[in-house]
Amino acid sequence: MENRTEISSLGEFGLINHLTRNFEIQNASTLLSIGDDAAVVDHFGKQTVVTTDLLIEGIHFDLMYTPLKHLGYKSVVVNLSDVYAMNATPTQVTVSIGISNRFSVEALDEFYEGVYAACEKYKVDLVGGDTSSSQKGFIISVTALGEVAPGKFIRRDTAQKGDLICVSGDLGGAFLGLTLMEREKKIYLENPQVQPNLEGEDYIVGRLLKPEARKDIIDFFEQHNIVPTAMMDVSDGLSSEILHLCKQSNLGCRIYEDKIPVHDRARQAAFKFGLDPTVCALNGGEDYELIFTLKQEDYDKITLNEEISVIGYTTETEEGIKLLTKGGNTFDITAQGWNAFTK
Amino acid sequence: MENRTEISSLGEFGLINHLTRNFEIQNASTLLSIGDDAAVVDHFGKQTVVTTDLLIEGIHFDLMYTPLKHLGYKSVVVNLSDVYAMNATPTQVTVSIGISNRFSVEALDEFYEGVYAACEKYKVDLVGGDTSSSQKGFIISVTALGEVAPGKFIRRDTAQKGDLICVSGDLGGAFLGLTLMEREKKIYLENPQVQPNLEGEDYIVGRLLKPEARKDIIDFFEQHNIVPTAMMDVSDGLSSEILHLCKQSNLGCRIYEDKIPVHDRARQAAFKFGLDPTVCALNGGEDYELIFTLKQEDYDKITLNEEISVIGYTTETEEGIKLLTKGGNTFDITAQGWNAFTK
Repeated sequence: MENRTEISSLGEFGLINHLTRNFEIQNASTLLSIGDDAAVVDHFGKQTVVTTDLLIEGIHFDLMYTPLKHLGYKSVVVNLSDVYAMNATPTQVTVSIGISNRFSVEALDEFYEGVYAACEKYKVDLVGGDTSSSQKGFIISVTALGEVAPGKFIRRDTAQKGDLICVSGDLGGAFLGLTLMEREKKIYLENPQVQPNLEGEDYIVGRLLKPEARKDIIDFFEQHNIVPTAMMDVSDGLSSEILHLCKQSNLGCRIYEDKIPVHDRARQAAFKFGLDPTVCALNGGEDYELIFTLKQEDYDKITLNEEISVIGYTTETEEGIKLLTKGGNTFDITAQGWNAFTK
Repeated sequence: MENRTEISSLGEFGLINHLTRNFEIQNASTLLSIGDDAAVVDHFGKQTVVTTDLLIEGIHFDLMYTPLKHLGYKSVVVNLSDVYAMNATPTQVTVSIGISNRFSVEALDEFYEGVYAACEKYKVDLVGGDTSSSQKGFIISVTALGEVAPGKFIRRDTAQKGDLICVSGDLGGAFLGLTLMEREKKIYLENPQVQPNLEGEDYIVGRLLKPEARKDIIDFFEQHNIVPTAMMDVSDGLSSEILHLCKQSNLGCRIYEDKIPVHDRARQAAFKFGLDPTVCALNGGEDYELIFTLKQEDYDKITLNEEISVIGYTTETEEGIKLLTKGGNTFDITAQGWNAFTK
């Protein structure tokens, strides 16, 4: 029999002590961590970046196919992705959770294992949070702090006309992972004897359940003195992010369908599900890649990095926000990305 | 008929634009605010304080008697209270909300009116957040940043033997306000014709629904060169906070019942409900006062401030954590404060 320790047996402060007992501070800027009214951070001579995300069971994740350890990892990573998207280095996170009594201490331990794994990988300190009961479902709120040299942060509204539009990694994989998991869930609910068939799908499942933040791209920029003119992360789907970037920068753009990076395994999965891989890349969310614009003269510098694709360029506003398809047609790019309130 | 705009008619980004359209930045340290992946804060030469709280409908508040504007105000204030409890000045907040479709845009406007009122009063900037749908109920997560001169933050575990134990304001009022509102709610649910009777109870109702953070006390410390040896805010009830402060500082204490400040109106309400006012002060939560310890030689300095009460002093650990009652008895102080997981 598995152990099950009721959370009420520890109490709130006992629980906090339990969950944070093995955590070691990794940043010299972390002066005071968990256990007081607030954490204290020293950002002498740096600028502080702060970002926050709320993740709610049934809206952002389904515990039927999301292991708690992966959920803890992902909850941290999606915030770090926002910090990197500012060209900053994440340094601290706070993690708050609201939980119903269906969760045991062992279940929370799994979640925090994931939180700690992400903190360790990205060298950030967990410095606080709040634990609460919830009436229904698991609620997670993460805030990340990061630091950046004065004036070196990169906004999303500062792209210039004629800049190259680039993305890191590949797109659409997380959405296809979600499609697969939802399909397998449905099959399981209809017939619990059928085991999920995830063979050969580890790539798209990994994109969904264990995303990574693109620290490597930020490091590459620094090593090669590359300064994007604008940058943001791709969390709601490429089309949604392109619209933000162009509209906020008062620009139009041309995106080439055949330049949008889609992983072979994602493409195969799309065909299997009868989906268009390009639509998955444009409208699927949660890839946590970076989209950024570069001056054209920086083109040579980025060809060094296979993880960066140039997918188009910015134009005058009047030219519209356009996709040029493989078949030679031109379409307006519209926001069909993830929308929290209509789906 | 009242206006009701569905949130889905705005979409997530439309909603964010709508809710933040009138907000002006108040702190020079706020370099980049709402609308990018993260906010950017300049804390050159200061240390950054970060704290976060999660508020969940049905657990932390009841919308049946909590106006949304008050809720927005309180959500910010409870976080600022934690920043002041570090002897720091709050500068920025992020506010994330999860909402079900039973809320209209007008309802959220009311909530944000309260958020903005608190930001304006305490001169902090709203710099970000996340909006999401929820499966059930209203979920609020606020993170506050503050700044403090290097090394000037005050921890809760640094009290010294023989220090005076002080609290600001008065205690137990919020709990009595909650008791009153719960009573009136019960009466109303049994007989909706009966109007709530809150006459003469505005003090305790205000303590519950519109708490303030004790900026004035922190300002007073600065003006009079007072440096508490330890400090925290009183959010879970006096007994719970005394236990934290003493245990984390490895000390015992003597608290005098007759020195615990209880407002006359709270005392009257307690008697009306058949409750012991001291028990309300010890075990009721949400007063958001400050508890702090001072060297004895600082006693003269604080007598200037009528909002500060000396309620006892710290002792050796071996002498225990004790309450001396008006009747001359001595009791151990136990943690009967608010516990998120057993109540």
